[in-house]
Parts: sequence; C-alpha cells; structure tokens
Amino acid sequence: MLKLSSVGSLAAIVPAGSKALDPAPSPASHAPVPQWEVFELELPGPAEGNPFTDVRLTATFAFGHRSIQVDGFYDGDGRYKMRFMPDTEGQWSFTTESSAPALSGKAGEFACTAPLAGARGPVGVRNGHHFGYADGTPFFPFGTTCYAWVHQSEELQQQTLQSLQAAPFNKIRMCVFPKSYQYNHNEPALYPFVRDAAGVSDFTRPNPEYFAHIEKRIADLRVLHIEADLILFHPYDRWGYSKMPAQADELYLRYVLARMSAYRNIWWSLANEWDLMRAKTTQDFDRFFEIVQQYDPVGHLRSVHYSHTMYDYARPWVTHASLQSSKFDQADEWLKAWQKPICFDEVQYEGNLNSRWGNLSGEEMARRFWLGVIAGCYVTHGETFLDPDSAFDENATPTIWWAHGGKLHGSSPERIAFLRKLVEDSAASGAQRAGLEAQGNAYYLNASAMDPSGREAQEIVYYFDFHQPIFYDFPLPEGKFTAELIDPWEMKATPIEGTFSGRAKLKLTGRPFQALRFRRAS
Amino acid sequence: MLKLSSVGSLAAIVPAGSKALDPAPSPASHAPVPQWEVFELELPGPAEGNPFTDVRLTATFAFGHRSIQVDGFYDGDGRYKMRFMPDTEGQWSFTTESSAPALSGKAGEFACTAPLAGARGPVGVRNGHHFGYADGTPFFPFGTTCYAWVHQSEELQQQTLQSLQAAPFNKIRMCVFPKSYQYNHNEPALYPFVRDAAGVSDFTRPNPEYFAHIEKRIADLRVLHIEADLILFHPYDRWGYSKMPAQADELYLRYVLARMSAYRNIWWSLANEWDLMRAKTTQDFDRFFEIVQQYDPVGHLRSVHYSHTMYDYARPWVTHASLQSSKFDQADEWLKAWQKPICFDEVQYEGNLNSRWGNLSGEEMARRFWLGVIAGCYVTHGETFLDPDSAFDENATPTIWWAHGGKLHGSSPERIAFLRKLVEDSAASGAQRAGLEAQGNAYYLNASAMDPSGREAQEIVYYFDFHQPIFYDFPLPEGKFTAELIDPWEMKATPIEGTFSGRAKLKLTGRPFQALRFRRAS
Repeated sequence: MLKLSSVGSLAAIVPAGSKALDPAPSPASHAPVPQWEVFELELPGPAEGNPFTDVRLTATFAFGHRSIQVDGFYDGDGRYKMRFMPDTEGQWSFTTESSAPALSGKAGEFACTAPLAGARGPVGVRNGHHFGYADGTPFFPFGTTCYAWVHQSEELQQQTLQSLQAAPFNKIRMCVFPKSYQYNHNEPALYPFVRDAAGVSDFTRPNPEYFAHIEKRIADLRVLHIEADLILFHPYDRWGYSKMPAQADELYLRYVLARMSAYRNIWWSLANEWDLMRAKTTQDFDRFFEIVQQYDPVGHLRSVHYSHTMYDYARPWVTHASLQSSKFDQADEWLKAWQKPICFDEVQYEGNLNSRWGNLSGEEMARRFWLGVIAGCYVTHGETFLDPDSAFDENATPTIWWAHGGKLHGSSPERIAFLRKLVEDSAASGAQRAGLEAQGNAYYLNASAMDPSGREAQEIVYYFDFHQPIFYDFPLPEGKFTAELIDPWEMKATPIEGTFSGRAKLKLTGRPFQALRFRRAS
Repeated sequence: MLKLSSVGSLAAIVPAGSKALDPAPSPASHAPVPQWEVFELELPGPAEGNPFTDVRLTATFAFGHRSIQVDGFYDGDGRYKMRFMPDTEGQWSFTTESSAPALSGKAGEFACTAPLAGARGPVGVRNGHHFGYADGTPFFPFGTTCYAWVHQSEELQQQTLQSLQAAPFNKIRMCVFPKSYQYNHNEPALYPFVRDAAGVSDFTRPNPEYFAHIEKRIADLRVLHIEADLILFHPYDRWGYSKMPAQADELYLRYVLARMSAYRNIWWSLANEWDLMRAKTTQDFDRFFEIVQQYDPVGHLRSVHYSHTMYDYARPWVTHASLQSSKFDQADEWLKAWQKPICFDEVQYEGNLNSRWGNLSGEEMARRFWLGVIAGCYVTHGETFLDPDSAFDENATPTIWWAHGGKLHGSSPERIAFLRKLVEDSAASGAQRAGLEAQGNAYYLNASAMDPSGREAQEIVYYFDFHQPIFYDFPLPEGKFTAELIDPWEMKATPIEGTFSGRAKLKLTGRPFQALRFRRAS
C-alpha cells in the first residue's frame, strides 16, 4: 500500500510550537552561482522509514521583494537536496522548512553572477506563437527525437552526444521512463523505482541514481544548447509505469519537478501519445498539468503529444501545441484558435522501416520542415533507418536514432541545418524580432519589432514546394527589397541583381522545391 | 426579344387534322449503319422565318418493341437533319413528325450492322464507381485538358490531333463555347450564334457551321478512341454566352443535344467552374441537367466541374463526380457518400506558369495520377508550359496545351502511359473486371468478377508515395501470388523470384515513389 503522508500537501502546517523553539536562522554564505545555472544545497537528514513519503522539505528563495518556494527531494543515503535556478543577478537568500527538524530552518545566501557564455535562460513563449530565451533572444525550435537514448549503453549515449554536437537540432524529445517498443526491448541498466527480487516496483521509492543519470544527460545537452523536451509519461511500457495509482503518479511528478526544474533547458511534455495510455483519462492529464504548473518554480514550457486524439491545446495550462500531424495547411486555423506556438513534433520519420510512420524519404522530411516553418510553426525531426543487410535478420538488434540515438544516416539533417541558419540569420539582426508569420499565399518572415502601427516585414520568404514557376509576380510591401534564389536541397542562396518593389515580376528557375528570400534594402 | 415558339416543348401536339390527311408513310430504305456509328437523315424544309425556333421536328426510331424519340435540327440553307446512334444490330425503322408538313411523316428503315473495328459504344457507369463501354469492356479514364483547342487555327488543331494520337489520353476536356482567359484572348474563327455588324449575338439563331466544326473534331477524336468530355458552359466569356436568358440556354442545349448526342464518344460536362458563373444559380444547373437527361437519347455520362463550391454529386441525374481537387485521401469518403465514379478532373497542371494551378512538376503530376488511381478513382492531366525565353515578352502569344492544344512538353505523359498500361493490362484478362478498389492502407486492384460471396482480388497494387521502406509485410488474401517491383518514374517492372502467400515479408528498394504489384498465381 502507498503511504504518502506529507508529499501531497505543500501547504501543510508546521507542527505547532516547533518553529517558535527554533533559533533564528543564521545565514550561511554559499559559493556564487551564475544566472540560470543550478544552485544546490545538500543537507543530511533522516534515512529511516521511507524518506520519499515521510519527510516534507521545502525552501523559500528570496531576492528583494520576491520569494519563490521550491520542493527539496531525498537523494538516498540520508542526503536531502534543494535545487534552485536564480533568474536575476544579485544577492539571493533562502530558508528551509521541513517536517524533519534536522532539515528545517536552515538559512543561507549566495550571489547570482553574470550568466556563463551562451547561457540565455529557459525558453518561454513570446510574440504570440513564437519562442524566446529569457534574455530576449528568439528561439526557433529545430527538434529531433531519441525517445530512449538515456537508457542505452554509456558508449552509445556518448555517441549520441557527439552526433548531436554536429547536428542542427536544438531540442530533443526524450522519455524519462524506459521504453518498450518495436526495435527497443532491452532492459534498462537502471529502474526509476526500487524493485524487489520478483521485479515488482515500489512506486513510493524512486531510485535516485536513475534520475541523477537523466540529469547528467540534461546537463550534457545544456552544454550543447539543446532543450530537453522531457516526456513524463508514455504508453510503451512493460514495467507498469503507465498505469501507476494516482498517488504514485503525483509522487513521481513531484520528485522529477523537485530534482529537475532548476535545469534551464527543460520542456515538459506530459506524455507521448497520451491517448494510448488506456489507464489514464483526460482528467488525469488535467491534474498532471496542474501539478507540473504548481510545483515547477521556473515555469518551463508544458505540452502533451497525442496519437489520434488531441488534448485541448486551448486550455490555459498548456503553453504550446505538440502535434503528431503533417497537416501544415491547417496550421493557420490552429494558430488562430489556440493563440499559442505550434510544434509539429511528429511528422513521421526519415527512414526505411516497414511502418508508414518510419520510412519518409529525406526529401520529404526536409520538405516538411519547410512547410512547417513557412506556416509559422516549428517541426521536429526523427530518423528510423535499418541497415539493409540486417533487415531480414530476426536476431539483429539495430540501433535506430529515433529510439536509441547513435549516428545519423539520413539526408535531411544538413538541409534542416541550412533552413535553421536561414531563419536564425534573419532573426539575428535585432533582439525584438519575432518569427515566421504566414500571410495567405505569401509567407512573411517578420523580422521587425511589433509596433503599435503594425508589423513591417524585414524579410519575406517564399517556398514553392512542388510548384515550378518560370516567373512570379511577388506582391511586396512598401519599400525596396533585395532578393535571393534559394535552393533548399542544394543548400545554395543566389542573389538576384537589383532591388525590387511593388508588384515585382522575377524570373525563376522553373525547377520544383525552390525558395526565394526578399530582404528590406533600406 | 426571344421567340421560342415550339422548341421548348417536345410534347407539343401536332396541328389537328394534319396527320389524318397525310398518306401512310412508305418506308424508304437507307444505307446500313454500323452499330454505335451515326445514322443521319437530311430533309429539305422551310428556310424562311427563324427555322431554329419556328419549326418543331422529331423522329421516332424503332427496333422490335423499342422506340426512341430524337430531336431533329436545322442545319442552315433549308436543310434539316436527324441523327441517331443505333445501339443494337438488326433492322431499324423510323418516322418523322414536324410542325412543317414538308418534314413530317417521312419514314424509312436501315440495317444496323456489326460495329467497326475498335468501336465499343458509349461509356457508362459500371461496377459502382467504375466505367465501361457499352460492349462490356472496362474503360479507365486517363484524361487531359485542352479547353479551347477547337477554336484555334486549323494547323494547330491538326497538330493537337497528332499529339493526341501519340499521347496516353483517352478522354479530353474541351469547351463548346470559345474561351476568354489568360493566355487565350484570340477571337474564334467562327461564333456559335449569328451576330450583327456590332457583334451582338442573336441567341435564337445558332450558327450551324460552328457546331459542324466541333462535330468534325469529335469525329476525329472518335477515330482516336478518345472520349470528348464536352463542357457546355463556362465563365471565361466576353461574348455573353455565360449569361444568356433561360430560353436561350435551353435552345442552345437542345440544339447541341440534337446535333451531337449520336456521337458515341461524348460525355456532358455541364460546366467548367460552374460556381464562377455569376449569372446562373444551382436551380439553373438542376434544370440544365434535366434538359440534358431528357433530350439525349443515348444517355451519355453527365457531370459538372467546380471552382470552390461542389455541385451535389449525389443528385440522381449526375452520373459521376468531376472534381477540382487533389484531396485523394478524401476519395474513400466521397465514394461511399455518392456511390458513383470519381474523376479528379482538375488536379492542377504540369507546367511553369506564375499561378499555383499551373506549375506542378512532372513528378508531382505523375504522383497525383498514382494517388488517384490507387484510391479507386480517375485523374485528368493538363499542361501549362511557357517557353522560358518568351516568359517576359509582353507581346508573346504562347501556345499552351491546356488552352490551345499543340505539342506536349511535360515529363508526366509517358509515366501516365505506363500507369494506364499497367491498369489496362490487368483488366484485359476478363470482360467482367472492375477497377481499382482502395482497401484501407493496402490498395487492391480487383480484377475479378463480383460474386455473391464477395470479391476475390486477382491483383493487388501498392504505391509507396514518399515512403521508402526497405522491407514490408504484405497481408495477402488467401492464395498464392507472384510479385513485381514497379518503378513508376523509371517505368520498369522487375519480377521478384518465388510465390507469396499469407503475411509476406518482401525486401524492397528503400527508394521513395515505388510500387509493387501482386498477381494471383493460381
């Protein structure tokens, strides 16, 4: 039976009298922490009983008139930890409060110093349906998918990190729980909960080592400036993690939130294919969103991914849509309905599997990135290549990027890199820039600040898809523009001589899958 | 003002007494006519007044217990004609009836002999959502589009006929009225109605020469075994033909029906983009359908094409759907709703124009044919290539297949030919064969007869589109099958060794846009 005596209630009253008897906390000075890095406090405490459920521990961090409450967590071996991501430079202080006297009333202070090079803070929503780092820099997600990479051999995980370093992806969809699915039936090296000899999990006792390992990988991604789109639940399960009791779900969520929220490069994906989790209801997911929203002091991005049935992305606790879809022509309608950013997080995968979702050509994957980006949305990559020689070998255990990580084999990533550079170059020339804004049949890259009189397009990008006009009449907004022909597959940009204005008739290549970029000349 | 004293009423009573005074008709013997060719009777009659509106003329053709009434028409210069397509071998007789005594009570007979080589009769609907000739041979439409080819120079028309002879198309969408639209602003050599010096049409006086010219072209197409999908109305008009009064619409329709119904290779397309004809309502089109249905004694196929708003294809007088769409994934739903064949008659055109509808790549056009055919429907081609050198020449008058005919320049036609051969080869091995029947994710070519216990697939065709599996598990129906890899673009079929049954795992190429065909081995 589960015993969750105190974890469930953050607002539990401290036992009467205990506080009055404590001496006033004497603040201890701690080492400085750069902005958006992790401040961590470790305290020794009770190891007896079940520290995960018996001990309540919180801390309040204060900066000037602001105070932020965070949950501590038990890290095993009598060690308790509190983590906090300071978001403002200057002097911070904190005090702890706990049901265990040894952990309560500890006070301290530390300086938050300038951010490390390249650190820009957590990503949030900005400009309606776009993203930006906390420092104001636009963030254009170009994601990939390696669901179970942190549950593979250390050697393979290192190879994945090397691949990511060279790849164009700045977001990765990955599961907290191990995955049991086609091509990935291995047992994980570690389990998220303590198990008995028969393999039965004690959902009241998380395995700190398991979560510490995932954190190590999140920190590795942070160095690479990659956002971890962390999938909290999924249906690909043979261990029971997809059908835990409600109290265990909450204990798990709050344990993850307490441990990981201080990592700036996290997005919460409440589930992959939530609608395939037969043991859970929409109300369960509403509750999960509430828990995540309440106990994540940083307020990381929150969404959920579906198989066939969408979660209602209009609900206020959802920060952005995470679609399994390639209906880019519906993007405009969805953007208007939800008023949130849209990530086409599963558009099928480049590969050669015998499943419809896992055998897109590289050309089609690259095309889908263009279609999504031009529609004012964001797209996530995935790759599912089998070695042709082992496709008929029943004993083969292939390494497939989408599940295991490893190496990339497809032809789309370098084209995605080219597109990312094109989008980011445009954004680089001003801190207040938004993202791509689809405008009817023409697609505008709004690189200018929004101002009260409307938006003035600094750049306009056209993508022709399978159309191959020999010329085109471009309806330019007021002003003068230079133009470049862009070949998304050959990854070339060729300037066109002259400047253009009004209804500009330009000669084009007559080849399909080309693009054109106008830039404001003055 | 219009005067349509008698044309409007087929059932008008013959003036009292006139019949009783006529001698009993003495049947004249006429030359034999092969089955499905045109029997034509010419009679001299009144040339004064307005013969188009003043004279009513019908004939009743009889074969055994059957009798079929047809309208005669005035062909100018005091000549009246009656045309009839006999559909059964044997002895036919006829009698005329007219408001003009000189035309009334003429009787005759003729033998209908065996059909000419290659003549199979008019095309009708068969097997639910497929087509077949009257002799039982399946007809799989692979259409093209040359809206105004009969209104170009004779030299260009001859070139178009030469192109069609070498092309894979067995249906052509073409307008009766001249067309005034982008790239086609020439005046026609002939006009459909008599005009005064100021260019004002007398809609009560059709120009026989105009219609005779179109008939000549329909006869040319008949020799090439090409169905004329004849567009009766369209909005691309600067002469007033799209906004005639209701009585003129009816006179025009009945004149065309009287003149042309006897040509076996006609389909009636009531309009191109009917919803862009601002002067007409849905009720007008309902009425047009009724007129066509009532006065076409052959019962040629009837449909109507739209721009944005579909006509209700479920209505009983519509024989098949004629879509402007490339939503092949909705085909299944539409087939179920309408229970009729579907022609995707406008899926955009292969070309290089500066309009979205006129610049598909050849690969995309060929792909759309595959997608449509595999969905159990039929697709129509069109081509819109500008000479790159004259694209910027304002005075250039380019010749574009879709409007003028001429020569074909695209890369899709030979791939369409390959697909047509593939489909027809399958059908060739039995007279009762149906067409392609989409079945969920797998696509079945049902080449077997329908029988009470269901259909037994003789052939199964898979098309992989942009998917590139390295192997696939094909769920075969009971029995043994041989298999071929098909490359739709390279136009190659490569047999795979062995026979297959049950859940057959086959190694594939790992390239996109491939197909696979199974054929029942025993």
